[in-house]
Amino acid sequence: MDKNTIHRRILAFLQEDIGRGDLTSESIFTKGEVGRANMVARQPFLVAGAASVAAEVFKIQNKTIEIVEVVSDGTWVKKGDTVLAVEGPVVDMLKAERVALNLLQRLCSIATMTRRFVNRVVKYSVRIVDTRKTTPGLRVFEKYAVRVGGGSNHRFNLADGVLIKDNHIAACGSITEAVNRVRQNIPHTLRIEVEADTFAQVEECLQCGVDIIMLDNMDLHTMEQAVQAINGRALVEASGGVTIDNVEKIAKTGVDIISVGALTHSVESCDIGMDWFG
Amino acid sequence: MDKNTIHRRILAFLQEDIGRGDLTSESIFTKGEVGRANMVARQPFLVAGAASVAAEVFKIQNKTIEIVEVVSDGTWVKKGDTVLAVEGPVVDMLKAERVALNLLQRLCSIATMTRRFVNRVVKYSVRIVDTRKTTPGLRVFEKYAVRVGGGSNHRFNLADGVLIKDNHIAACGSITEAVNRVRQNIPHTLRIEVEADTFAQVEECLQCGVDIIMLDNMDLHTMEQAVQAINGRALVEASGGVTIDNVEKIAKTGVDIISVGALTHSVESCDIGMDWFG
Amino acid sequence: MDKNTIHRRILAFLQEDIGRGDLTSESIFTKGEVGRANMVARQPFLVAGAASVAAEVFKIQNKTIEIVEVVSDGTWVKKGDTVLAVEGPVVDMLKAERVALNLLQRLCSIATMTRRFVNRVVKYSVRIVDTRKTTPGLRVFEKYAVRVGGGSNHRFNLADGVLIKDNHIAACGSITEAVNRVRQNIPHTLRIEVEADTFAQVEECLQCGVDIIMLDNMDLHTMEQAVQAINGRALVEASGGVTIDNVEKIAKTGVDIISVGALTHSVESCDIGMDWFG
Amino acid sequence: MDKNTIHRRILAFLQEDIGRGDLTSESIFTKGEVGRANMVARQPFLVAGAASVAAEVFKIQNKTIEIVEVVSDGTWVKKGDTVLAVEGPVVDMLKAERVALNLLQRLCSIATMTRRFVNRVVKYSVRIVDTRKTTPGLRVFEKYAVRVGGGSNHRFNLADGVLIKDNHIAACGSITEAVNRVRQNIPHTLRIEVEADTFAQVEECLQCGVDIIMLDNMDLHTMEQAVQAINGRALVEASGGVTIDNVEKIAKTGVDIISVGALTHSVESCDIGMDWFG
Amino acid sequence: MDKNTIHRRILAFLQEDIGRGDLTSESIFTKGEVGRANMVARQPFLVAGAASVAAEVFKIQNKTIEIVEVVSDGTWVKKGDTVLAVEGPVVDMLKAERVALNLLQRLCSIATMTRRFVNRVVKYSVRIVDTRKTTPGLRVFEKYAVRVGGGSNHRFNLADGVLIKDNHIAACGSITEAVNRVRQNIPHTLRIEVEADTFAQVEECLQCGVDIIMLDNMDLHTMEQAVQAINGRALVEASGGVTIDNVEKIAKTGVDIISVGALTHSVESCDIGMDWFG
Amino acid sequence: MDKNTIHRRILAFLQEDIGRGDLTSESIFTKGEVGRANMVARQPFLVAGAASVAAEVFKIQNKTIEIVEVVSDGTWVKKGDTVLAVEGPVVDMLKAERVALNLLQRLCSIATMTRRFVNRVVKYSVRIVDTRKTTPGLRVFEKYAVRVGGGSNHRFNLADGVLIKDNHIAACGSITEAVNRVRQNIPHTLRIEVEADTFAQVEECLQCGVDIIMLDNMDLHTMEQAVQAINGRALVEASGGVTIDNVEKIAKTGVDIISVGALTHSVESCDIGMDWFG
Repeated sequence: MDKNTIHRRILAFLQEDIGRGDLTSESIFTKGEVGRANMVARQPFLVAGAASVAAEVFKIQNKTIEIVEVVSDGTWVKKGDTVLAVEGPVVDMLKAERVALNLLQRLCSIATMTRRFVNRVVKYSVRIVDTRKTTPGLRVFEKYAVRVGGGSNHRFNLADGVLIKDNHIAACGSITEAVNRVRQNIPHTLRIEVEADTFAQVEECLQCGVDIIMLDNMDLHTMEQAVQAINGRALVEASGGVTIDNVEKIAKTGVDIISVGALTHSVESCDIGMDWFG
Repeated sequence: MDKNTIHRRILAFLQEDIGRGDLTSESIFTKGEVGRANMVARQPFLVAGAASVAAEVFKIQNKTIEIVEVVSDGTWVKKGDTVLAVEGPVVDMLKAERVALNLLQRLCSIATMTRRFVNRVVKYSVRIVDTRKTTPGLRVFEKYAVRVGGGSNHRFNLADGVLIKDNHIAACGSITEAVNRVRQNIPHTLRIEVEADTFAQVEECLQCGVDIIMLDNMDLHTMEQAVQAINGRALVEASGGVTIDNVEKIAKTGVDIISVGALTHSVESCDIGMDWFG
Repeated sequence: MDKNTIHRRILAFLQEDIGRGDLTSESIFTKGEVGRANMVARQPFLVAGAASVAAEVFKIQNKTIEIVEVVSDGTWVKKGDTVLAVEGPVVDMLKAERVALNLLQRLCSIATMTRRFVNRVVKYSVRIVDTRKTTPGLRVFEKYAVRVGGGSNHRFNLADGVLIKDNHIAACGSITEAVNRVRQNIPHTLRIEVEADTFAQVEECLQCGVDIIMLDNMDLHTMEQAVQAINGRALVEASGGVTIDNVEKIAKTGVDIISVGALTHSVESCDIGMDWFG
Repeated sequence: MDKNTIHRRILAFLQEDIGRGDLTSESIFTKGEVGRANMVARQPFLVAGAASVAAEVFKIQNKTIEIVEVVSDGTWVKKGDTVLAVEGPVVDMLKAERVALNLLQRLCSIATMTRRFVNRVVKYSVRIVDTRKTTPGLRVFEKYAVRVGGGSNHRFNLADGVLIKDNHIAACGSITEAVNRVRQNIPHTLRIEVEADTFAQVEECLQCGVDIIMLDNMDLHTMEQAVQAINGRALVEASGGVTIDNVEKIAKTGVDIISVGALTHSVESCDIGMDWFG
Repeated sequence: MDKNTIHRRILAFLQEDIGRGDLTSESIFTKGEVGRANMVARQPFLVAGAASVAAEVFKIQNKTIEIVEVVSDGTWVKKGDTVLAVEGPVVDMLKAERVALNLLQRLCSIATMTRRFVNRVVKYSVRIVDTRKTTPGLRVFEKYAVRVGGGSNHRFNLADGVLIKDNHIAACGSITEAVNRVRQNIPHTLRIEVEADTFAQVEECLQCGVDIIMLDNMDLHTMEQAVQAINGRALVEASGGVTIDNVEKIAKTGVDIISVGALTHSVESCDIGMDWFG
Repeated sequence: MDKNTIHRRILAFLQEDIGRGDLTSESIFTKGEVGRANMVARQPFLVAGAASVAAEVFKIQNKTIEIVEVVSDGTWVKKGDTVLAVEGPVVDMLKAERVALNLLQRLCSIATMTRRFVNRVVKYSVRIVDTRKTTPGLRVFEKYAVRVGGGSNHRFNLADGVLIKDNHIAACGSITEAVNRVRQNIPHTLRIEVEADTFAQVEECLQCGVDIIMLDNMDLHTMEQAVQAINGRALVEASGGVTIDNVEKIAKTGVDIISVGALTHSVESCDIGMDWFG
């Protein structure tokens, strides 16, 4: 994550939550009044975005706010642990609190869920990856949380990866034609990925030199056959309907990559509280 | 929702997902190629954001994309129903697809969950309201979905509502002092809300003319007593730990408002697919 | 006023006045040359925006400019008093000078005029409030100056307050219907204000539980009757044609709030000069 | 005024006044409801910014709003005249109303005051010009209103004109040195203007080929002598303390240009009302 | 190139060149005055950016300007040919002229130079690609012109491609370690490219499964040996000191890709004139 | 160049080159790792933009990067000289490197070419000036480099200078009419420049008091006659087809200003390398 990119986004989030000021706190506290607050885990989870995001929210609101204590991303915390402690002007800390919490709760939750998937397949040489099913405006944050959880990222946007899907294929008449058209136009630094629904499509992919074959919504048996047919000539990605319950079975088929939309599209916020001290 | 506000946000979301272009689709389709696509419900849900958000995403990407069919916000759809059908240049429709889906799935889910809460308390004269626990950058959209679901909104940001919390009270020494300081500073168009944890605090609120008393994490019995003590002299809001299972019991205590963070902070995306035609 | 909000606006004002640079000063002074300048009152006035706005203009142009001396907002200065003294790189001080003066002169003027209105009604328990008749782009600054002058703010924008006017009422057929429609849609944190032109309308307002009744352009006699009829059941705001000459008579009717458009729409800049020292 | 420039500014003004929406009007009117409104002069004035600014505000809020009638800039209207009539979606017209009025009232007032100054000196071959004492954020609008009023513009910002003032001269030791330094650095398309407080300074200006000599706060007698001494070898600008009462006497001295800060820094809004029709 | 991306950039370029308006043209032409202008080639070149960029400049300045005639990108024109003909409001056409020309001249020049390189190596199965040595702010335009010229693009930015250079290798101790660290962190959709200066490095690259080996500033003989050693196990890119004179010799070594910084960092504008008609 | 202006642009350039992060370097280096890098001249040139632009790029990317050494703008360096040495966090230095180089190479090249033109005419009292043929988005930087090279700037945009061209004249019927219309509308701080193609036009310019006469594409003989006829009554600018080979002959005709489009539209980047140290 690049600092200037992060900065710009967080500034916008603060503006959304603060509006033209905190009517309540600005009426009650004087400008100079300082205090301390701890963000405390109210359940166990894997930390993501504490130093890199939540702490930044406070610094961007007021650079004199000090980060007294912060747990490193990728650390497990248990109920009662302090994730982040800040000290400084109370009004600005109150202004930053909600945005910091909203982001941190979401990112920790994504990292924790990713870790659960990763742990299920730890015996297999397989990557758990995310999708483009992220929250609009938060992609860079959410994909970071996936990495903290031990997952990897799929492409970030339509310009930094190629994925030829069924309607692309239909428009071209064949996978081969679609791959050829794409190969002419893209940087050589990118691999070409094609979505294959059938065994026949897998074979066409292999013939035209596709780099990654996405097995889309295939049953386990066909998937296993496909992996054997591909036999290392392309990376194999399993996609569609992946859950914590079936992920190990999918991994067992020998695919290289399993993409899981649920890592980011269905996130239940981690419970984190904010304790204030005079 | 104001159109210019919506426009600016959606443009940023599109930029996030598209980057400098869709490498795959721009390689395959010619600029003029047109097609049609339907967003189809893969489960039943309450529609929110179809015409007002998802359709706008397509129009903003390319104003020549036509909205062929769209279900009104607040309508229940069943599995297989078309929520939105669009027709126009394929490349721009593909560029807009993911952002439109990501937003629509989230908003329908929020509306649907809100409606479930609302339905549980339909016998009582009580409002289900949201909180500031929304996704950073999406507040205006998510609060709209809550309204579509039959809920109401709490304040949008720190500048358009007053909520005096425990650390405000601690800083002032008393609720009375906190209320006085705030009342001096705010527009007369705003009500003053105070968070009360105890019965004593409720009584102090009444004495200093608080407009709304938030009963924070109170047990049902105390809550009921508080409601009776207040007796219409202030609006009463119940807050903290509200779930679909306890919401009716809370409503039964006679509170006017129940605020539910889970409406927006823990959303499992509705399942909506995109079917493409030639 | 939130610092990040202020920062963004001032940056735009500086850009407007500086363009791509100060051709004259950059030709004459070297980059390192330092100096000092005093902003001096050339007439008596109430200071608003010295530390919070004018000083910020200098700091935003170049953070090494030091604020040597600054009079607190809400202080009366007399002719010859220094309001703000700055020291630092001359070129950047010259670049910031005009914007700082233009803002400061305007804000001091608004605060001073507000104070004059407030002083006239000091015997009465009444608030002097502003309107939305502010200068486009300067609302947050101008409403701040009103508060410094001892006035209060009306709503900041169409989203953080409700005011039902004659054309809203006409569209609904009745005040009651208009109030009902609005009450369904707005956060419970907001009061509902209705503009009443006649005594009959005042009564309808009371019957449907309006929180604030705006007596619009009423003569003093009717106003007094209305106040008596309302008798504390709603806040009463007098509006329309308020001048420094009639404001006391209006206050005498017993209204709670008097809104004065002239506080911000007709401002004669305070005279403040800039004295430079080597 | 360039359309894209105007557009960007007005969009920001609308955002300031509307926030995330018009709570009142959006609760009362349906999206499709249309109506008509007339902006009516409540006093006589010279129109500036009706078609070019106020009408644009409505179009930018919603391009389907139609401009039914609009008085050309530079036309005198009398009390009761319609300046601008618009027809379209009521909610968007109400959202645009306040910004349109705030701008129009200010611009008409500037144009009217400028015209009063211009009329006083109509017998003399002299220009009335504005200064940089404009409202931050509104310079391009206010300088346009000055032109509509028959005045001319001084430089727009520090980069598109040169004005050597006393502290520049002090830093260089002499006018000659200051002029030389500036002349090296600026485009040949710009004239060099120097502020002269004394007759001796006027003479030095002439010797080093200054293009415009600003006589700053000079008494009428010295001013007249200066004009005679300059004798067409440079343009002469009178500046400082110009009022509607002394402007003719200043013109009589033979100066070419009279700059008047009060055209923009002390503006009493023209009274314009908005009449609504079903 | 995505339309919304292009739009935003062009708007900024227009603002840079127009400032707050065209003083000359706005003084001379009335708002309604229409005319026609032709952009005419004053030398032969390959057209890039006529319809996609220059025409857009005019449309963005004023959408009523019509594109009467435009040569397709990728077409050779000869001296005297019209590349683009526009018709519409003269003032807006004059405002757009310079930006349109500055962009078009640059893009045609890049496309033409790229085509010259491509033609030199037409017998070989090799790609001519660009680098990140583009003009700041114009990358998306310049990389498009390279594609029009028959070249291909290298990565667009540091986030959509991997290139391990000498200082990365030095920091890790070995290519192998560097590749391992990178592979852990990046999307599987990206290939890994490593810069190799020596034959030994090429061998290490092959052993750790590098996808693309960049032969940096190698002499032709070593390059040829490297290509033979690699023998199709990785893509081979030649880089450094490529000129129109040595490009064919480099191609002859059998490399797959030749990257040429000069395509974009040293561009002599094509000569294109603008002819105006009443 | 104003610092805030420069800052905004550089931030955009960094974003273009970095995207959401440097995949390679962020995978290899830890956040804290520091290093040093020198920008070294690989050919002789005149430095422009080292301290003022390239150093700023590093500071904007990360303000803890230290500028260890930097050559002043306007200094000649020879092959092997260090132009700029920076020390700090390696990842941020690598992120800033390409933008800093791309800008510096371009600006040094412009300054060097300008100096070559200036040196050719050093015996004559003539200015070498640039045009609006600059790279879109870089005008403020490129015009600065021209000044460093000893040249002067023509107008920066259409709003800060007047240039009446053939199609303006055609629209008015005569130069006299065009000049009159413009003179009415522009600030008195600007000179009026007219493009003259024939001797007759030069005479009309003199009669209507034009300040600057641009001799456009005139042969040397006519140019000389024109200069003699003008005889100091207006500034004379030669324009069109100026090259390093004919610039001295043009200067000899006695013109005051020679404008050279090639200073900015056809720039071959100076060769500057980046050497890294642990």
